[in-house]
Amino acid sequence: MKVGIVGASGYSGEVLVKLLLAHPQVQLAAVTSRSQAGKRLAAVIPALRGVDRGLQFTDSDAAALAASDLDLLFLALPHGAAAAYARVLVAAGKRVIDLSADFRIADQATYERYYGPHPAPELLPSARFVLPEITAPAWRTEARLVAAPGCYPTSILVPLVPLLRAGVIARQHIVVNSYSGVSGAGRKAEEMYLFAERAESIKAYGLVKHRHLAEIEEQLALHTGAPTVIQFNPHLAPMRRGIATTITVPAAPGADLPALQAAWQAAYAGRPFVQLLATGETPDTAHVVGTNRVDLAAAHDPRTGNFVLTVAEDNLMKGASGQAVQIMNLWCGFPETAGLA
Amino acid sequence: MKVGIVGASGYSGEVLVKLLLAHPQVQLAAVTSRSQAGKRLAAVIPALRGVDRGLQFTDSDAAALAASDLDLLFLALPHGAAAAYARVLVAAGKRVIDLSADFRIADQATYERYYGPHPAPELLPSARFVLPEITAPAWRTEARLVAAPGCYPTSILVPLVPLLRAGVIARQHIVVNSYSGVSGAGRKAEEMYLFAERAESIKAYGLVKHRHLAEIEEQLALHTGAPTVIQFNPHLAPMRRGIATTITVPAAPGADLPALQAAWQAAYAGRPFVQLLATGETPDTAHVVGTNRVDLAAAHDPRTGNFVLTVAEDNLMKGASGQAVQIMNLWCGFPETAGLA
Amino acid sequence: MKVGIVGASGYSGEVLVKLLLAHPQVQLAAVTSRSQAGKRLAAVIPALRGVDRGLQFTDSDAAALAASDLDLLFLALPHGAAAAYARVLVAAGKRVIDLSADFRIADQATYERYYGPHPAPELLPSARFVLPEITAPAWRTEARLVAAPGCYPTSILVPLVPLLRAGVIARQHIVVNSYSGVSGAGRKAEEMYLFAERAESIKAYGLVKHRHLAEIEEQLALHTGAPTVIQFNPHLAPMRRGIATTITVPAAPGADLPALQAAWQAAYAGRPFVQLLATGETPDTAHVVGTNRVDLAAAHDPRTGNFVLTVAEDNLMKGASGQAVQIMNLWCGFPETAGLA
Amino acid sequence: MKVGIVGASGYSGEVLVKLLLAHPQVQLAAVTSRSQAGKRLAAVIPALRGVDRGLQFTDSDAAALAASDLDLLFLALPHGAAAAYARVLVAAGKRVIDLSADFRIADQATYERYYGPHPAPELLPSARFVLPEITAPAWRTEARLVAAPGCYPTSILVPLVPLLRAGVIARQHIVVNSYSGVSGAGRKAEEMYLFAERAESIKAYGLVKHRHLAEIEEQLALHTGAPTVIQFNPHLAPMRRGIATTITVPAAPGADLPALQAAWQAAYAGRPFVQLLATGETPDTAHVVGTNRVDLAAAHDPRTGNFVLTVAEDNLMKGASGQAVQIMNLWCGFPETAGLA
Repeated sequence: MKVGIVGASGYSGEVLVKLLLAHPQVQLAAVTSRSQAGKRLAAVIPALRGVDRGLQFTDSDAAALAASDLDLLFLALPHGAAAAYARVLVAAGKRVIDLSADFRIADQATYERYYGPHPAPELLPSARFVLPEITAPAWRTEARLVAAPGCYPTSILVPLVPLLRAGVIARQHIVVNSYSGVSGAGRKAEEMYLFAERAESIKAYGLVKHRHLAEIEEQLALHTGAPTVIQFNPHLAPMRRGIATTITVPAAPGADLPALQAAWQAAYAGRPFVQLLATGETPDTAHVVGTNRVDLAAAHDPRTGNFVLTVAEDNLMKGASGQAVQIMNLWCGFPETAGLA
Repeated sequence: MKVGIVGASGYSGEVLVKLLLAHPQVQLAAVTSRSQAGKRLAAVIPALRGVDRGLQFTDSDAAALAASDLDLLFLALPHGAAAAYARVLVAAGKRVIDLSADFRIADQATYERYYGPHPAPELLPSARFVLPEITAPAWRTEARLVAAPGCYPTSILVPLVPLLRAGVIARQHIVVNSYSGVSGAGRKAEEMYLFAERAESIKAYGLVKHRHLAEIEEQLALHTGAPTVIQFNPHLAPMRRGIATTITVPAAPGADLPALQAAWQAAYAGRPFVQLLATGETPDTAHVVGTNRVDLAAAHDPRTGNFVLTVAEDNLMKGASGQAVQIMNLWCGFPETAGLA
Repeated sequence: MKVGIVGASGYSGEVLVKLLLAHPQVQLAAVTSRSQAGKRLAAVIPALRGVDRGLQFTDSDAAALAASDLDLLFLALPHGAAAAYARVLVAAGKRVIDLSADFRIADQATYERYYGPHPAPELLPSARFVLPEITAPAWRTEARLVAAPGCYPTSILVPLVPLLRAGVIARQHIVVNSYSGVSGAGRKAEEMYLFAERAESIKAYGLVKHRHLAEIEEQLALHTGAPTVIQFNPHLAPMRRGIATTITVPAAPGADLPALQAAWQAAYAGRPFVQLLATGETPDTAHVVGTNRVDLAAAHDPRTGNFVLTVAEDNLMKGASGQAVQIMNLWCGFPETAGLA
Repeated sequence: MKVGIVGASGYSGEVLVKLLLAHPQVQLAAVTSRSQAGKRLAAVIPALRGVDRGLQFTDSDAAALAASDLDLLFLALPHGAAAAYARVLVAAGKRVIDLSADFRIADQATYERYYGPHPAPELLPSARFVLPEITAPAWRTEARLVAAPGCYPTSILVPLVPLLRAGVIARQHIVVNSYSGVSGAGRKAEEMYLFAERAESIKAYGLVKHRHLAEIEEQLALHTGAPTVIQFNPHLAPMRRGIATTITVPAAPGADLPALQAAWQAAYAGRPFVQLLATGETPDTAHVVGTNRVDLAAAHDPRTGNFVLTVAEDNLMKGASGQAVQIMNLWCGFPETAGLA
């Protein structure tokens, strides 16, 4: 099977190229980038020296991609730029996995409250938001266009959805603090992301109405049957990769730690990319970077009646490109872990 | 005025030595360390090359210190080890500022729930916990022994106390997430604190019943008139110094951001070491490291009804040694900022 | 083919476990550790959660390993501790790849000048130091015991050997400065390696007669036909992994940059793990970490008549475990890149 | 005495503002910045919250500065931009200390080989390059315009000049490797300086004919009586501040370590900002950041006949703004350490 990537000059694009070059079931046959067209992959992504098989970036021409023999395309483009490619490629019968936010929100009005006018509302009915551990498997046959979840949402939905479904936690007073490595901001040459600004520095940003809330809260409502509003506090941390999320939520009346663990077990036992830690352990971003895992742990605080959920993932793997490959694996009938472990 | 430091081989001891060597009103006349006795300060603390005035570490002999002409002593010792010095030095009429936890908890039973048997309960009546911006000034004449607050508690009490007093925030569902630089763990040669373990890593630790809760909650009760239980989630972050604390708390009915800002203004206007940031800004640990400041900001989230308070301080300055010098300044009638700005 | 690892609790042991678990041609059937015996791999190496296949550490019993059905064993033990295992395992007919320094020096007297009495001199005749790109292939049939090169030596021998052989550089005034990530010191709980000591810090250490010189200079003499003494200045740099080596060496009379590049090309064209960069580029440790590559570049300074060679590798991959797997691949007739790209 | 800073929005400008605000002998009365005019200092430099005395950035108008009551001005502008201010301010009788490269090279032809046409050659006769520990004191009365040395040159000239003068080292085969924190590149929003690019990364850059060579080699010739060509290899290291320089140079015939130490002692005994370390110690950037010191150490390698000199300084202090304040102190008759210790 031949696959391509549209727009691979950012950090998640780079990781996606590496994963697909080494993937046992697919052939990475096209990688496009407007700014890098004509250059060899390894000339732009030095980590690929010796393993880029001579591939060159080509121009990002939607019509040419539609006419190509590629079976599936990943869109690794900025928000708003993916829709134009999706429209042409879906019409041409290609499978499309979009890593941007363009199709993550099913409800157009919700999308527009956070992002402004939708660039391709006519595609929304055929698009599916797919977080493989949570989304019901019907998407594998229904979807023509899959939106891969964002990095923060993955680290929040994976722990919360089974607990809300099982009724072991409250729906009010959910407080989420997330700390992201700086690669999460992309390869943007802005002063805020300079080494000399971010090293030895932690700061909150985007408090109140962060764009990822649209996706998080829509998914919580869809999967747990009721509207759920959360407090989401994102921060920048002085590391390249990784997200550490800590969630405080009141236990439901009568719920204890074994009940919480049972809900997670029921949802995730046997799932290769969700690991439940033993009581007393806490996830560490350093243990998941480079993997497609989400590590989860929980503690119960009898003084406050809260559960404290701790979560770690690699923002560029399970938070972006690793998850996109996992989606491809399931969609195409490959082993879920192919190319990922 | 002559001052001394007992036990100066840790990170906060090192910062304290630097501050006192450069202080315009006092002479640092003695620095003790059991393990380093006989060595020049700069031989142990290379940052002091050229400015240690030839001072040597002396042995940590409580009786000799009691008999000396030192007016005031700082105890920069591990928890449990400070009390034995405090006992002898207070009895000899010395002023003592203790940076350990030994005298931070006024209530012996509370202390013992968190730390075990108290090493010197007979001193508790003459000891005062002093967070200068919060503790009423009577301590300046009453105390013989001052306990300087811990690093996490400072970053939590400064934002919360005026708001609870003013009634602008709820007393339930207070969620505190703190991220500390690794120097907060002290100079301990343990695997967990190795560079190769902590670089590029964030993880929670000590969830549920962290020792600092004893001090935080006792102070909240004393200063705001009612018991207050908080969720406190400490984490290690990949930086040397700095604490970033983010607090989520429901607004009291009818309270808005201006009311919150007014409460902070009333408490801290004119205080040199608390800075209130403009709306939309958030504190950054990189902006406070090396200073004795606490930077504070607040946001209101109309979706959740919560305030989000963001706080940054240097764990070794306002969180330890800078605050101890500030306490000395006030106790001895020096300008509050002497040697600190 | 079944392989085992003796002593896998350090950083290079950990990387070796990961590589062998994912290797397509071998089965990792035993992992020993005195201190961790009885625990699951993932309990000790959290990065392996979900992929440790249930393997447990077993005790490091040489006799039991000798009697096992393992075909090949890797020794990832401290210097001096490997020899005792090598003796028993070689006698039992096992292939042994040793990652320690015990068998890297062919000349016993040289070894003893740097390390003290040799722990198993009788094994020296059957041992081979193998740097795959440089060592002549006869080792594949002759050796029973292979010593994998050290991290610094790899980064120095790969650039220098072909240039000395080709006569394009001088043999005098070779100056080597190397900067290593902190994992190079191993997982030692010593104050010098604490995060708060090493973050934001560069310092030289071990200047003059560093132990790796024994291995570097013996290899230079063996492969280039004449004794060669180098200045080797190792440093610690504030990063987890990676070695950046910069070598200044006078050009031989008449030698220019094309001649140098030709010598490297002749030696390394087609070798998957040595990448020659275009003129004007310089290697970056961030581009090689996680790979088994050595990236090389050269500049010529007409003002001084020197070449400046710049080199980057991952100290735990090409500098240790990746190279050990590469050696296994060649020894056993697997593709050289199996499990490594 | 009133002083001003022209162009204070970069990293060295920021450090200079902090130093001058706290300086006991001068009043910082004007800080200019084209882009920040009208804003309070602390609004642009958050580290100054609470200590900026209400100062605002003013426009960078050379005529207005010339007409002001300022006695001395620091120019903290990019290369090429300082000369226009220097011309007007010197003509108006102001003392000027320039932190740029515009007046560091006395010989116009040399300047132009490295930088292109000189922006104000008519000022060269009245300009002096001043490295206080090395430049003969006549500058204090002769100069109207002082060029403060660059960060790399300071770390190279301080160790080398006394040794070349004393004849204890060779003049050939001097190899200098320098590793600089990323703040050395200034506050430039370029991809190369992003956190996600530079964290965990070391790389050489600017090999062969780096601009700082013009200044280094001119000073070596002026102070040691003969042309001296060095190999200078600069690198970027993953830290915010600090330069670590390691110099390898053959010992002169008969010279030993005591002779070298004696030459340094003769040059630097009693100088507050040069510290000579004991044999066996090596400088560490972490020990000098925040100070105006250069730490020096030397080793002798009997195998190669080389000395290895190791040096550490803070690129923003002794490498820029601290040194500029030291120059002001000496020029104006203040204690050399005023405001610097």
